[in-house]
Amino acid sequence: MSKDRAIPHNFEGESLESVFVGRRDGEARPTVILIPTVMGVSELEIGFGRQLVELGYNALVADLFGKEFRGAPRDTMFGEMKRLAADRPALRRRLLHVLDLARGLDEVQDGQIVAAGYCFGGMCALDLARSGADIVAAVAFHGLFDPPGLPPGKIDAKVVAFHGWDDPMVPPEAVVSLGKELTEAGADWQIHAYGHVAHGFTNPNAHEIGLDGVRYNALAAERSWTSFISLLEEVFGGHH
Amino acid sequence: MSKDRAIPHNFEGESLESVFVGRRDGEARPTVILIPTVMGVSELEIGFGRQLVELGYNALVADLFGKEFRGAPRDTMFGEMKRLAADRPALRRRLLHVLDLARGLDEVQDGQIVAAGYCFGGMCALDLARSGADIVAAVAFHGLFDPPGLPPGKIDAKVVAFHGWDDPMVPPEAVVSLGKELTEAGADWQIHAYGHVAHGFTNPNAHEIGLDGVRYNALAAERSWTSFISLLEEVFGGHH
Repeated sequence: MSKDRAIPHNFEGESLESVFVGRRDGEARPTVILIPTVMGVSELEIGFGRQLVELGYNALVADLFGKEFRGAPRDTMFGEMKRLAADRPALRRRLLHVLDLARGLDEVQDGQIVAAGYCFGGMCALDLARSGADIVAAVAFHGLFDPPGLPPGKIDAKVVAFHGWDDPMVPPEAVVSLGKELTEAGADWQIHAYGHVAHGFTNPNAHEIGLDGVRYNALAAERSWTSFISLLEEVFGGHH
Repeated sequence: MSKDRAIPHNFEGESLESVFVGRRDGEARPTVILIPTVMGVSELEIGFGRQLVELGYNALVADLFGKEFRGAPRDTMFGEMKRLAADRPALRRRLLHVLDLARGLDEVQDGQIVAAGYCFGGMCALDLARSGADIVAAVAFHGLFDPPGLPPGKIDAKVVAFHGWDDPMVPPEAVVSLGKELTEAGADWQIHAYGHVAHGFTNPNAHEIGLDGVRYNALAAERSWTSFISLLEEVFGGHH
């Protein structure tokens, strides 16, 4: 039985509102920061959070854009994404702010935080790892791999990217580049590539975004979720 | 409780001896053909077979080289591998012969066969899929990806390759090529790439082969095994 709680917070003058999903008992547990797609916080990520709660973890669905963008049209959100992606140092500060927010919650077990994101949020999860932040793992579901153009450092987090091979935003060269980047950063990394799978494959409503190369794939959604849960068992252990 | 049974067979005049690993009850079950590394049938693959039996499957550890090569020195085995790899149409016939052998066993459930191989054996598993053979899946653990140079056909089997990114025998370009090949063949495919992982990562004694770029990796061994079992659950269902 999960319980959602809106958490207002403030980043450099912007009002954001993330959603914490946990059990009613309020006990400290390992926690996954879920970073939504370009469309921002939605029922999709909150639903993933509820599944994590059933497995004994907490989830914090991170708002990066602001509550006023909840349910905003696609083009508005693409504009916001571009704004955030255009300044990667500022994006990194924003992500570290969200990490601090998670750390400040009583229900979040010390040092037991994984960041997992979707699409643009996948890039954000990778960026958190790239920052050298103290998270145990960073996971990207159909994430963008664009390197941040910042001085590379050591990556201590485990990194896993679940990737649709037919994702038009992330061609094979970008996969090879990410492998090289993560290897040079010393990360313990995995990339799971899925054939005939497009961008946005975890989202049953991906077609609603109305873009070629963005579509749901039930099998890839299930395979990536299963591997994600295996990773959580690997890093958090099986008992909560 | 598993039971091993040597199965002598004959391929184009060569005497081979595979090992069937199953339960004593002799009931028909889904079966994995395990295709050993260049070193041929060994306790390693038989041990993997026993783990599969514990999970409710059978295993047939395939002998491709002949019983007289059991435990032969490395250089002898590399010579044999080169002989087999030099004639891919003949190798394909050899593999289809092993598949027929599996099909002929009472304990092997009709249509419920997966081929999984290691190193050279991983290439063989891919070659079985490439042949269009009626197997439900082909799995390569640190397999060689070298294309067979035969007219490409449709691949009906699901294909999964577990790949060490630092494998000197399979550079990133070969990974991209395999993705392209499998996509064009219409296969439902996955490639799981592991950072800082070399060739031979499933074998705790990999260092004994005395080659740079061949070494055991416990984490990659465990991750690939876990994903392999997930695949078997996906294709065979969870109950036997």
